[in-house]
Formats: sequence, C-alpha cells, structure tokens
Amino acid sequence: MMIHLESDYNNGAHEAVLRHLIETNNERTQSYGDDRFSEQARALIREACEAPDAQIWFLAGGTQTNATIIDCVLQPYEGVLCAETAHINVHEAGAVEFTGHKVISLPAHQGKLDVEELRAWLAAYFADETAEHMVRPGMVYITFPTELGTLYTAAELAAIRAVCHEYGLLLYVDGARLAYGLAASTDVTLSSLAQLADIFYIGGTKCGALCGEAVVFPKGNAPAHMLSRIKRHGSLLAKSRVVGVQFDALFTKVGESPLYLQIGRRAVTLAMRLRKHFVERMGYPPYIDSPTNQQFFIIPNEDLERLRQHIGFEVWCPVDATHTACRFVTSWATTDAEIDELEA
Amino acid sequence: MMIHLESDYNNGAHEAVLRHLIETNNERTQSYGDDRFSEQARALIREACEAPDAQIWFLAGGTQTNATIIDCVLQPYEGVLCAETAHINVHEAGAVEFTGHKVISLPAHQGKLDVEELRAWLAAYFADETAEHMVRPGMVYITFPTELGTLYTAAELAAIRAVCHEYGLLLYVDGARLAYGLAASTDVTLSSLAQLADIFYIGGTKCGALCGEAVVFPKGNAPAHMLSRIKRHGSLLAKSRVVGVQFDALFTKVGESPLYLQIGRRAVTLAMRLRKHFVERMGYPPYIDSPTNQQFFIIPNEDLERLRQHIGFEVWCPVDATHTACRFVTSWATTDAEIDELEA
Amino acid sequence: MMIHLESDYNNGAHEAVLRHLIETNNERTQSYGDDRFSEQARALIREACEAPDAQIWFLAGGTQTNATIIDCVLQPYEGVLCAETAHINVHEAGAVEFTGHKVISLPAHQGKLDVEELRAWLAAYFADETAEHMVRPGMVYITFPTELGTLYTAAELAAIRAVCHEYGLLLYVDGARLAYGLAASTDVTLSSLAQLADIFYIGGTKCGALCGEAVVFPKGNAPAHMLSRIKRHGSLLAKSRVVGVQFDALFTKVGESPLYLQIGRRAVTLAMRLRKHFVERMGYPPYIDSPTNQQFFIIPNEDLERLRQHIGFEVWCPVDATHTACRFVTSWATTDAEIDELEA
Amino acid sequence: MMIHLESDYNNGAHEAVLRHLIETNNERTQSYGDDRFSEQARALIREACEAPDAQIWFLAGGTQTNATIIDCVLQPYEGVLCAETAHINVHEAGAVEFTGHKVISLPAHQGKLDVEELRAWLAAYFADETAEHMVRPGMVYITFPTELGTLYTAAELAAIRAVCHEYGLLLYVDGARLAYGLAASTDVTLSSLAQLADIFYIGGTKCGALCGEAVVFPKGNAPAHMLSRIKRHGSLLAKSRVVGVQFDALFTKVGESPLYLQIGRRAVTLAMRLRKHFVERMGYPPYIDSPTNQQFFIIPNEDLERLRQHIGFEVWCPVDATHTACRFVTSWATTDAEIDELEA
Repeated sequence: MMIHLESDYNNGAHEAVLRHLIETNNERTQSYGDDRFSEQARALIREACEAPDAQIWFLAGGTQTNATIIDCVLQPYEGVLCAETAHINVHEAGAVEFTGHKVISLPAHQGKLDVEELRAWLAAYFADETAEHMVRPGMVYITFPTELGTLYTAAELAAIRAVCHEYGLLLYVDGARLAYGLAASTDVTLSSLAQLADIFYIGGTKCGALCGEAVVFPKGNAPAHMLSRIKRHGSLLAKSRVVGVQFDALFTKVGESPLYLQIGRRAVTLAMRLRKHFVERMGYPPYIDSPTNQQFFIIPNEDLERLRQHIGFEVWCPVDATHTACRFVTSWATTDAEIDELEA
Repeated sequence: MMIHLESDYNNGAHEAVLRHLIETNNERTQSYGDDRFSEQARALIREACEAPDAQIWFLAGGTQTNATIIDCVLQPYEGVLCAETAHINVHEAGAVEFTGHKVISLPAHQGKLDVEELRAWLAAYFADETAEHMVRPGMVYITFPTELGTLYTAAELAAIRAVCHEYGLLLYVDGARLAYGLAASTDVTLSSLAQLADIFYIGGTKCGALCGEAVVFPKGNAPAHMLSRIKRHGSLLAKSRVVGVQFDALFTKVGESPLYLQIGRRAVTLAMRLRKHFVERMGYPPYIDSPTNQQFFIIPNEDLERLRQHIGFEVWCPVDATHTACRFVTSWATTDAEIDELEA
Repeated sequence: MMIHLESDYNNGAHEAVLRHLIETNNERTQSYGDDRFSEQARALIREACEAPDAQIWFLAGGTQTNATIIDCVLQPYEGVLCAETAHINVHEAGAVEFTGHKVISLPAHQGKLDVEELRAWLAAYFADETAEHMVRPGMVYITFPTELGTLYTAAELAAIRAVCHEYGLLLYVDGARLAYGLAASTDVTLSSLAQLADIFYIGGTKCGALCGEAVVFPKGNAPAHMLSRIKRHGSLLAKSRVVGVQFDALFTKVGESPLYLQIGRRAVTLAMRLRKHFVERMGYPPYIDSPTNQQFFIIPNEDLERLRQHIGFEVWCPVDATHTACRFVTSWATTDAEIDELEA
Repeated sequence: MMIHLESDYNNGAHEAVLRHLIETNNERTQSYGDDRFSEQARALIREACEAPDAQIWFLAGGTQTNATIIDCVLQPYEGVLCAETAHINVHEAGAVEFTGHKVISLPAHQGKLDVEELRAWLAAYFADETAEHMVRPGMVYITFPTELGTLYTAAELAAIRAVCHEYGLLLYVDGARLAYGLAASTDVTLSSLAQLADIFYIGGTKCGALCGEAVVFPKGNAPAHMLSRIKRHGSLLAKSRVVGVQFDALFTKVGESPLYLQIGRRAVTLAMRLRKHFVERMGYPPYIDSPTNQQFFIIPNEDLERLRQHIGFEVWCPVDATHTACRFVTSWATTDAEIDELEA
C-alpha cells in the first residue's frame, strides 16, 4: 500500500463536508454570499470565535484570499511585512505585487518573525527622514502554522500585535492550515486569534473542504463595499453556497467542538506518531521542530529511493552532501492504516 | 409550490456531477491542475470540441476567468472591444480594468455586436493618426449566449472572426451559459466554436456544476507560463480536482452526447414551454426574442405582485409607465413539475 | 512665412517664464516640492484662486496628472464618469485604466456633459439592485475648456457640482488649457473654479511653460501621504524647482493680473481674429462654436492643399464627401505677425 | 559662505544646457518625441555610445524611468533582481510594485551585487520544482554608480551580463548619476555600457539638466509600441523638446568629448579634493570607498554641529555611539570656490 504524505490537498472533502453538499444539493438559494448556508456558517464561525461582530467572507483559495484581502485593506502606498519564508513572499507567484503592493521581508526564524527584529525595523522606518519615499508598512502578515509547521505562542502573537498597533499596522494571520495549528497550540484558540488579529482566514482547502477559505474581520472592522472589492479581484463566487455549505459542515459541532477542530487534532495525532517513528525507530533527526501536521526530517540520501517506493513525500532541500530534508504531511484524510503501515 | 426562475445559479450541482464528486472523493491526486480528473476532463473536452491540440485550464468562476484570461493574452497597452451590454462592461465590478486594460464598448443590438459597426470602428482606429495615443484594440469579447439570451449565428461569428483577424485582434467567447446556447443554436457547435474563437470558456457554474469554468485555447495557442500567470491572478486552485471532477462528469457521454449538451437541451425545452405559456396564454409579449434559457417578457405592473407569490424572477427594467420587463431563467435544475405548475 | 497653428505645445516657454528660469538657475534649493520657488508659486496660486487652504502639487504633464490624481483620490472600486470625447477616455492610451479604474463615458454635447443626463445616469445607478456588481462612480471628470474648445458656464459647473455632491462624487476639472478657458469665459474664474471643483489642475505645458501642471485641492482636501502616492506613480520630480519656478513666473502679476491670465487673453484675442477671418472672409463655417484658442472650421477639400502651404493645422475629421473639419490653435506663442499674415 | 553638498539635484541646469534652452526657445517643433532636438540628441547619444541602432526615449525623472521601462520590458509574471540597497527597492515608494512586478533583493556588497551570489540564486530558482509558483526573474537591475557611490568594473559587468544571458534575463543599468560613474571608472565607457547592458538610462536630472533621463536600448531591442506603453504610464512628454534640447546640449562635444562626460569629470575631481581634505586633514575615515561624486565619511558626533554651520550635507546612518556616517555630494554645480573654502 502506498502511503500518501505529499500534501494536505491531495484528497477530496471530509465525509461530513461531502455529506452536507449532498443533502443540501437540491435546495434553492440566494447567491453572491447571501445564501442561507453561508449565513449559517457565519453564525457558527462567530460563535466558535466568540466574536459576535465578526464579518466573514468566503473565497475559493488561499493565494486568492491573501491577495484580495491584503489589497482590500491596505492603502495603495502601503506594503506588507512578513518573514522571508512567508507564502506571499515565496509561493504565490507575485499575486500581492500584482495588486500593486510591496512585500517587505524580514529574517525568518524557523518560519517565524522575531518581534524584536520587527520592532527595530519599524522604529528605523518611522525614524527615517526619507520614509515618505519608501513603501509605508501597513500590515504584518504571519502564517499560523508557518510554512515550516511551527507556531507562535499566544504571548508572541500578543507581542506582535502590540508592536503593530503601536505603529498603526494591521495584523493579518494566514490560517491556510489553521486547524492543524489550533490542534497543536497549547494556548492559541479561535477566540484568542479573533482577539489578537485584525484579520485572519480559516483555511478550508487544506483542512477538510474541497475548496474555500473563510476570511474573518473579528471586530466588524472590514472596509466598506467588500462585495465590490472582492468581485473586482475576480474572487466573488456566484454560487457562494459551494463554500458556505462546506464551512457550515466544518463548524457544526460534533460532540463538544466543531468538526474543524477535530479534523486538526486527528491529523496532528497521526503526525506525532509519524514523528516518533521516524525519529526514534528510524533515527531520522527532525529538520525543524514542528508540532503540527507538516513534519520535516533529515534523511540519508541512500534511504530516499526505498522510502519513495512506499511513501509519497516531498523533497524539501539538501542538508549536506549525503542528507536531504524531506517533508511528510498528514491531513484529515490520512488514515490510521497508513500510519500503521508506516510503522510496520 | 414556489417556482424558482430567478437565475441559473441557485442550485447545487447536477446529480451526475455530484455523484462523480462522491465516487472520486477518496482518491489521492496531484494538485494545481495535474490531477487525473482534470487530465481526463481535458481529453473529453478536446474530443467534444474536435480540437486535439486544445489547451485547457479550469478556473473557479466567470468574472475571474474573464479578467484572468483577458489580462493573460492582451499586451499591456491593449484593450478589449465588446457590446455595451457585455458582462465585462457592466457586471464585473471593473475586474478587467483592475488588470489595467480598457474595456471599449460598442453599441449593442439585442446584446450583440454588429459586425459592420465593428469593422467601421476598427477601420477608423487604424486610420487615425493619433492611434498610438489611444488604447489599441487587442481583442473582441462576445458572449454566447449574450446577457439577453440571444445568439450569434455561425455566419455572424465567422464574420466577426474575419474582421478580428484582418486587424490582428483575438476573438474571445464568454460561454458562461454555453450549454444553453449550444442547445438553442441551429449551427454553432463546440466544434465550430473551437474553429472560430481564439479562446473561449465553457461555463460550469451556470450549467450544472457547483463551480468552475473551462478555458479553451483550441489551437494550443496559449501564451507561455500560464500556470504562473493564473496563479498571479489568484485564480489557481490548489485542489484542482474540485473543478476537474465536475467537468469530467459534464463531458462524459450519456448516450450519444456529453451530459453538458443534454443539460442545455433540457433547460431550453423548458424555456420554450415557459415562453409559449407567457406569450400565448398570458399575453405577455417578449421583451427580447431569446431562444435560450433566459426569457424576458413585458408584464403589466398590476400583475407583478401576484406573479411574485408563485414565481421567483428578476425585474429587468421598466418599459413604460405601466409595464415592466422581467427575466425568467430556466436551468438544468428546473423541474418539469415547476413548468407544469406554471402552466396550471 | 509659415504660420503655425497645429497645437499649443510646439513652442518653448513664454519669455517671462524662461527669464525666471535663467535668473534663478544658480540658486541652491530643496527638492521634492520643498524648494522655495514651488512654495512661492503655491502662495501665488492660492491668492489667485482666493483659496488660502489650497494644497498644491506640481507634476510634469497632463496625462500623468490625470492618471496620478484620479488614482490618488478614488477608492479602488470606483470609476470616473466623463464625456465620451474626454481626453482621459480617448487620448491618454489607457493611463487611467492602467491604475485600475474604469472610465465610464456618457454622451458628449460639443465636448460637454449634460447635467440632466448625468443626473439620470447616477439616479439609475444608485437605484440598481445590482449596483454593487458594477463599478461605483466616484468622480466626474470634465475639461475646461473641453477638447473641442467649448466652455461650461459657472451655472453649468454649479449644477454638475450639485449633482456630484448629491451622490457623493468628486468633481475634477482638467485645466490643460485653463488659461484660454478663463480668458474666454464670461463667468468662470480661478476663484469660482476653486469653489466649485473638488480638485482641478492648472495647465502649464499648453499655457506658457516648458512643462508642468499645478494640481489644486482648493479646500485642503487632499488625501494623506500625497508625496508617497505621487512618487509611487513615478510622478514626483526630484528637482521640483523646474516646475515651481515656471509657475512662480506664470502667477506673478504683470500689472493687475497674473501672467497666466494675460497669456490666455492674448491667445483668445488672436483666435477671434482668426475666426473672423475664416468665417467672414473665407466663408468657412465653424465646425463647432468655440470661444477659446482652439478653432474648428469646415473647409472645402479643394482648399486644403493650398492652406497647408502657408498654415500648419490639424485635420480633425471628414464632414462630408467634399468638406473636412480642421483645427487651428493659437497659443501664447502665436504672434500678431502670424495672424496679420493670415489675414493678408 | 555656505557650501552646498547635500545632493546633486539642488541646482538649476548647467549653463550650456540653459543656453541651449534659451537659444531654441522660439523655434516651433513637433511634439511627443518627434521634435528635431530630440532627434538630434538621439543621434549624438548613438554616436557617443557607438551604438548606431540604439533606440532612445526621453523621460522626465528617474523613478518614472525605472518603473516605466521595467514594466515595459518584463513579462507580467516576471520580477526584477537587485541589490537590497537598490534605489528601486528602497527609495521609489514602491513604483515598480505599483506596475505589478516583484522586486527581488539579494545581499548588497557596498551597494553592489555579487555575481556568484547572483548565479547561485538563479541556479537555485531554475532548479526548484516549484519555480512556476514563484515570481520568475526576468531582469537584473544595477545602478552605475551605486547608491553608495561605488562602481562595477567592466569585468564585473561582463560577468553579470553573462549570468543574465545564461538564464535568459535582461540586464538593466540605472545611470541616474552615470556622468560621475563614467568619469571615475577606469574601464567602463558609454560604448562598453552599450555593449554590456540590454537597456540603460543616462541620467540628466543629477548630471546637469533641469530634468530628464535618456533611456537607451542599444541594439534596437525595444519592444513594439513604446510610445503607447510610455504614455500609458503617464511618462510621455507632450512638449518633448524640453528634455530633447537638454540632452542635445549635454551630448554636444565641447572640445573632444561630450559636455556630459566633462560635467562628470569636474565633479569627481572636486570630490577627490574633498575626500583628501576630509581624510588627510580632518582625519575622518571614509565610511565607504567611493570613487565618485558621493563621498561618505565617519564623523565624530561632536563635530557635526560645527560642520553644519558651514556645509550642507546629509546624515547617512549612525556608526557607533559617538560617530555618524555622513554623505557629501559634489555635482556639476559645485564650484572651485566651495572646495577652496572647505579646505580653508
């Protein structure tokens, strides 16, 4: 049996999401975000975030969401600060710059911004006599979890937020893999995220949906005319129910917590089994210390071919002449059987 | 029973599309367009279009598709010519202009461009000594069917194409409702469209899919680096299978022809029944002579309220002090029972 | 002697402007708008406009000014309304659309917008249920004088302004040839313009300067960070004195009024002589009734070649099989001798 | 006497440039680049560059030139590589990103790119399996001299060019201060620049002109429709003679070489005297080893105030708790008397 750990977007939808698509299929609805499933999903997300004033929009994918929302909230002359490894800086084909904004990168520390480096950068910018000739920073963008699977603590997020607000910047959190981050974090919750971030998005595509991301303005702080703004970016779905229904399922409680959180927990549990197996049994040291569903190990090159016959994974980067860092990703779709097989 | 004729995007997916999403859900696939369902859907579309060299991309929605593709193929200094009623000119919130291109509108004749007016406009442009100071026309954009449900004949398309090529312009056909156009046209087929258009898209959202449109470059004539170009516009789906699976279903033959064409035929048949009822039984004259799934009638204002209690429809525009033009739209999801009820 | 009436930008600078460039050449100044000549020119313009709170920026050329300023003041999702003959709609190579905004054209009446048509268009837009899917009008753009040499009266400007403000739009006046408009208008002055327009620019290039236009926000109503916004458009001159010195000269009083107004009067006086000659002596009817420095006449085709031997002018458009409309432009640089010669 | 060494754009025009503006002022010319002075200046530049096929456009300023030309020659999905200290990356308010292109920065070594780092970056990019999801590098941008006054040798330029061409990138040289670079370089000439660069611009604003930069495509390699492209960026001067006349003067030979080169030599000679004085007499060590008109010294903080009373200069950055790096700039307008005074 081939074990698929290449990515968290190589499956269809979580069965509960699919089931909801099926059972709602014949109902007639409004469009462009006014359908009752989107409305219901919004109510559930507001509740899960303990953010009763939150405004929520559903978009189709992650790069689209980042580019659309960043452009919608920044002033034209503002740029966005991020870690140099940030998705918007590396793997979005310049989608943010396409909208006219500079992506300003700072050093990354295991995928994370350092709050003191951020503070120093901002202090220097605002002290610079030529600042008006430079792109004004308008936002800090972080990923949770990061592209390397790492997490900010609540205290780190609070410190970044404090620096942002001191200098008048917005804090935006890209939660493409948010379910896995929340499952692994000891102190960041949807609720604390809604308090700390000015804007964040709850990733669907990588966390159980066929497609779709939910953008949250937790304090009702979205700019006016969002429908026009989103449509102008080509990001408005006519048949908005397609994402609305999926988030309605993802945020319906199964037992005591929304399905979305359970999806995250399951994948992280499997990731920890995988990690234990690779580190303790196989002796592959972690390339990075990730508590989430993306795991990176340093693997002797001579083992690669054999592993590839049984496991789908991604080569990350060479480490030295004889070792390679590789990424293994669990998801809501990874089965116990796959990890059993791996361990066997 | 409420009869829903507001739009062709108020339902979920055609049952065969939904079924295919269900049955393929647990299969692991590649991403970003390389999944096997997208590949299969491409093969079926190439066959249906008799265009073996066609390059095909799947995007999520119509406005996104228009803005992305128009920007991808135009030179930066070029604009796009269209009828003043064209979707890109009216109802896309400036998405084409967002990409930096002027939309140049010509008079609309029941939603259609007149080829002689087009030719005259182009002749005047290219004869103008100040042409280099004006936006150069790089493309003609037409909708098939138009926003008013009307259709170009194959001869009209050929004439427009000839003018386009005489002046070095591309011909792009927006097929958001293509299924209904093909069903109603006496001489335009997927195959002739693939011969006449430089680029066209096959609409999914309004024709049986949950979401998704298929862009076709019928002669393998797409510019290089389309993946980067599409991603830069935020239009690349990571989990591309979501649209690939749906088009795989839509272009699978049911009997002798692809499901897509049958979906169109059914809706047009129902539209013709609706039309007969409104014109002959109710005495409502057509506002426009549409052979497709969008039907427009002139209705006495005093009848509107009563109609609204039974039928969902859209007010189009006032006709005179006592009459209003209204739009009634059938779709793949309209049931025989709804039209029976209407007639009763 | 060849008489040059092709355009109002085929000469160098008015001698007083040139003299001021010479006499200030060796003075060291600040840059980026902070030089003392720019400051002095701003003070003179504020005085001439009776607008003590006016904010003023100097840019290099007209298309640059239109595109930069329109983009700076519009919201991203807003477009600009104008007559179909407007410079931004025809002869700026899509510079406004390059910044992402739609140019929405209304019928032109001898180059002018009709206020009732404007009101009706806005009423229809704001009553439209689908308005959020359409480009929101954010500004009305007019030219004074228009591209056809015609002028709005103060009452017409006031009516347009009233409609603008009723619907929340800005009124922007392109004054590329403002000197000639002010000279010909019976009731529009710099002061009334400063009261009626939200933004206007005072054209230098066509009115006595080597280059440069002065953008005026008469009520101190410019958005924040204009320096960054202008620089981002590539429109900020490092050596800002080059335009500052010229406007300092143009707005220095010569006798009782600024040189700028005198420049306009002289050209219009010559234009009226020219007009009288062509209409009364030559029997060429005006193509359009222009009171400013651009004059248009209907000329028998058989006369064109002979005229061309003595006069430089521009063919505007064919009128009928045997007649052509031609444009003759006077400027600050047109000499009495030229018009004497013409009359002789 | 105050000695002005703040910048090279705080004066008017070189007297020969001014004289040419005066003597040509009353001549009637064509516009939009077709005036005879622009034509003449182009011929002189072609000769000075030994590039008979060169295509040349005149724009108003440096940021405008960079943003316009970079956008004109890059494919939409391409970005531009540069040193992190590059003007386009730091001090152009995001003008390049405004046109939709990412500025990708590499480490700067005294303002310069290291060719081996560049090669390694490009090798890594093109070897990356995810390259299509990243911004494709389409150009290398360098400044000559750099923002820190340093120079590439001809061999370094040739090595960068070789890497560029190996990977299919264009090499673009920003010559805002080119006159001073050519004067100081031992082996880079206009002619070698025309051979090594795909595109470069000859700075006027900082090198003797009131305004204006000359963009050179040395091998006739400009893309089609440059007039439309430039106008669309708002960068086309109607009265193009304003820059044409100035470059006509700057490239007219005075004795054996164009005035432009002599302007550079004079300023560099004065810079070397200034340097000798500061280093040898004052004991201020250079902050950077610049052979051109921008000189940087490390100055004890306690000396700053006293210096400021006699000399205008720019604080660059703090060096340590008690020392500051300061910039002193000579230009064509710096007088012998000023340097005499400095030395006294």
